Amino acid sequence: MPRIRFTLAYEGTDFCGWQIQKGQPTIQECLEKHLSVLCAQPTRIFGSGRTDSGVHALGQVAHVDIPENRTHIPWHKALNAMLPPSIRVLKVEDVGFDFHARYSCTSKTYSYTMWTLSDYVLPQRRRYVWNTGPLDFRAMDRAAANLVGEHDFTSFQNIGTDVQSAVRRVTRIQRSPGITEQEQIWTFSATGFLKQMVRNMVGLLNAVGRDKISPDQARIILRAKDRSLAPATAPARGLCLEYVAYPEDKK
Amino acid sequence: MPRIRFTLAYEGTDFCGWQIQKGQPTIQECLEKHLSVLCAQPTRIFGSGRTDSGVHALGQVAHVDIPENRTHIPWHKALNAMLPPSIRVLKVEDVGFDFHARYSCTSKTYSYTMWTLSDYVLPQRRRYVWNTGPLDFRAMDRAAANLVGEHDFTSFQNIGTDVQSAVRRVTRIQRSPGITEQEQIWTFSATGFLKQMVRNMVGLLNAVGRDKISPDQARIILRAKDRSLAPATAPARGLCLEYVAYPEDKK
Repeated sequence: MPRIRFTLAYEGTDFCGWQIQKGQPTIQECLEKHLSVLCAQPTRIFGSGRTDSGVHALGQVAHVDIPENRTHIPWHKALNAMLPPSIRVLKVEDVGFDFHARYSCTSKTYSYTMWTLSDYVLPQRRRYVWNTGPLDFRAMDRAAANLVGEHDFTSFQNIGTDVQSAVRRVTRIQRSPGITEQEQIWTFSATGFLKQMVRNMVGLLNAVGRDKISPDQARIILRAKDRSLAPATAPARGLCLEYVAYPEDKK
Repeated sequence: MPRIRFTLAYEGTDFCGWQIQKGQPTIQECLEKHLSVLCAQPTRIFGSGRTDSGVHALGQVAHVDIPENRTHIPWHKALNAMLPPSIRVLKVEDVGFDFHARYSCTSKTYSYTMWTLSDYVLPQRRRYVWNTGPLDFRAMDRAAANLVGEHDFTSFQNIGTDVQSAVRRVTRIQRSPGITEQEQIWTFSATGFLKQMVRNMVGLLNAVGRDKISPDQARIILRAKDRSLAPATAPARGLCLEYVAYPEDKK
């Protein structure tokens, strides 16, 4: 069975996240439904990781093993013709069996967009931003610097996970202007992220930006390895999985 | 009764346009419902003009006459607290009775966004663009130049209107990059627009961009004053009412 790799974009608003859950609309369920029709047999898709309910993607990666007698299918066109417009296949590539969307992944990049300038979010942007109000960006930059590097991120991991180690290497936390003047985008890259880790880091940055806690407290909270000490999780809608990196990609 | 002026943004996707229509969700109906509660009496709102079903706005202007005993209401906060997030009040101003959102308006600016670069529209942009595919922008620029100026725009006016004259002065048609590299934005300013005039001009520009008709034919179609000669109306979702100008505004 040949293996193919999909690069996917989706708007998470109307889905209960990536992973299949009985009776709920999920990205994985939607993709598998159409892949199974095209493959004429039950077909699994393996994502680089789950995204939460309401989280968006511009560069999710997944792989599928397809039957030998289905190699002629124009996957890109066929899937996009069947999928709802809230999910698009951006790229289809033949890969070897040594490629695994989840296990071959070497790093991920997420963006988180905050609406910081005016009281009211433009309707056209409401699905993609968190309305935080004005924030002290310099203080947030200092707090962010405390999170970069290899750390045990237990304080930023939500319950319900079965990972053996909470150590991850965050390689970048960077702030940039958004597509409207009211928005600020935070970009997070890491070798891997724990459950809701980005949203929990954003929750902390927001608390710093509102002067609820100091930038130095970010380090104290990190070292405490205690989720209960860190501020609340930021909403899903500001989050977007931008890019998943693999050794075979030049970028 | 004091008069107030509202500047409004909305996403048109889930509305049957601006104007009240029995049994349909419209922007005007939604605004009047909440204004009538706040004013404790049936209250009308007068827009600068209608927008079609699915058309968006970033700068629609409307006025309302409010009862004397309601001048204390914090309109901006109160309305935004009641309205769905698909409609936002951006600005509230006290105006005199010489201000009329429709009749005082001196010009309007619309944008129209085309998705021109890739086959598939990003889910996050699907409500705001028309997926045209690759276009010859230079040819479109030449066609657009033929439409600028004072003309009888009968060829670009859809039926169902009761205007006395189809003469309008288009002051600007300008192309600029969109917020993603796949998008091109066309901006149209005029002293006024006929019913679906922008979408009909976009329909023509698209036909030129696809080499279905030549840039010079734009002039021939315009002069013919015959709607049946012009290409089909472009979809509503790419259109946005950006700005409505009044003599009292500096801008």
